[in-house]
Amino acid sequence: MSRPSVSQRQLERYPLYLSYLLECSKNSVKYISSSSLAKGLGLNEEKVRKDLQIVTRSKGIPNLGREVKKLIYDLETFLGYHHTTNAVVIGVGHLGEAFMDFDEFKSRGLNIVAGFDVDDLKVGFNINNKPVYHIDRLNDLIPSLDVRIAILTTPVKVAQNVTDLLVKAGIKGIWNFTPTHLNAGDEVIVEDVDLASSFAVLSYKLDTKFKEVK
Amino acid sequence: MSRPSVSQRQLERYPLYLSYLLECSKNSVKYISSSSLAKGLGLNEEKVRKDLQIVTRSKGIPNLGREVKKLIYDLETFLGYHHTTNAVVIGVGHLGEAFMDFDEFKSRGLNIVAGFDVDDLKVGFNINNKPVYHIDRLNDLIPSLDVRIAILTTPVKVAQNVTDLLVKAGIKGIWNFTPTHLNAGDEVIVEDVDLASSFAVLSYKLDTKFKEVK
Repeated sequence: MSRPSVSQRQLERYPLYLSYLLECSKNSVKYISSSSLAKGLGLNEEKVRKDLQIVTRSKGIPNLGREVKKLIYDLETFLGYHHTTNAVVIGVGHLGEAFMDFDEFKSRGLNIVAGFDVDDLKVGFNINNKPVYHIDRLNDLIPSLDVRIAILTTPVKVAQNVTDLLVKAGIKGIWNFTPTHLNAGDEVIVEDVDLASSFAVLSYKLDTKFKEVK
Repeated sequence: MSRPSVSQRQLERYPLYLSYLLECSKNSVKYISSSSLAKGLGLNEEKVRKDLQIVTRSKGIPNLGREVKKLIYDLETFLGYHHTTNAVVIGVGHLGEAFMDFDEFKSRGLNIVAGFDVDDLKVGFNINNKPVYHIDRLNDLIPSLDVRIAILTTPVKVAQNVTDLLVKAGIKGIWNFTPTHLNAGDEVIVEDVDLASSFAVLSYKLDTKFKEVK
């Protein structure tokens, strides 16, 4: 199946639609129009209409809208939630441990199968029934565990070295939580979650809005 | 001091520059040009040049660039890292606990002073010397603790109700880690970190690149 080209910003909106529709479904809402979805999420109506046309063939009923349950299913299919990808956590610190410990992402198709670290206090132990291996074992375990995604939560100073190891071991995608730029080559997808950047945006907007004397 | 208008995407780049420059500084690099900074981060040179002009008055030395230490200081000032804002964590689950437990963000001006939850197994206890209070106490504690920012890590289903309480208690900014849209009114800044959206982007790009048969 060939997939339509969608922008990063556009992709980021689909999980928002899904979360809103799941709320609607819980509240026994059966049908929803693009305009009420747009209104509920504070988005532009035309944008929402276009976004939805990409993920669903359902046209909706005039004056009523699309069936919520069908739209949820189509969004989940589009987002790949109906098949599972194996992932590992690299760097079992606070954030890494939180990832291993909660199963939130399993319903979204992300199956964390193991962690990797260098710390003797962590290697050899289990977290939430998932083993923590020494980083030296990446090369033999990534292929045998059928892992495509690495969730990178190491300290910044080792992030690039670890990335080189991951690429060599055959990882296809890196979900990067370290606040640094990674060179992973053209064959590997890197998606950055930069909490420092996000906080910087919040902090800057607050300071601008409330113009404190410093 | 009036602040120049900068876009969200632009703001998000400044912490990247900073992290790169800190690495340079550690490696005893004394000067850096816009072009080598751009190259190191895989960004457009003209963009980097414009970004830097907003945060620093340093013009740099021809063929050498700007002083790294001065640029770091100017970036940190621009990002508000040199003054501290008090924050609370709302919802002391895995992610909330990770926030309370590590002090990573203190150097970026974010001082977490307490957590709030409804769970008897958490309320009344300390995490990393920070007390966890019952959510009922928001109204009296937010003003007395001089808190401007709430880090929201509750379940989705209570996120909007808690947001209403936070706004009423006088919170100015919400760092939203719940995968849902919050209505907080015009007076409160909401910055979303939507991990589900981020994962959706990674997952979609992987599927598109490697075109698996499903």
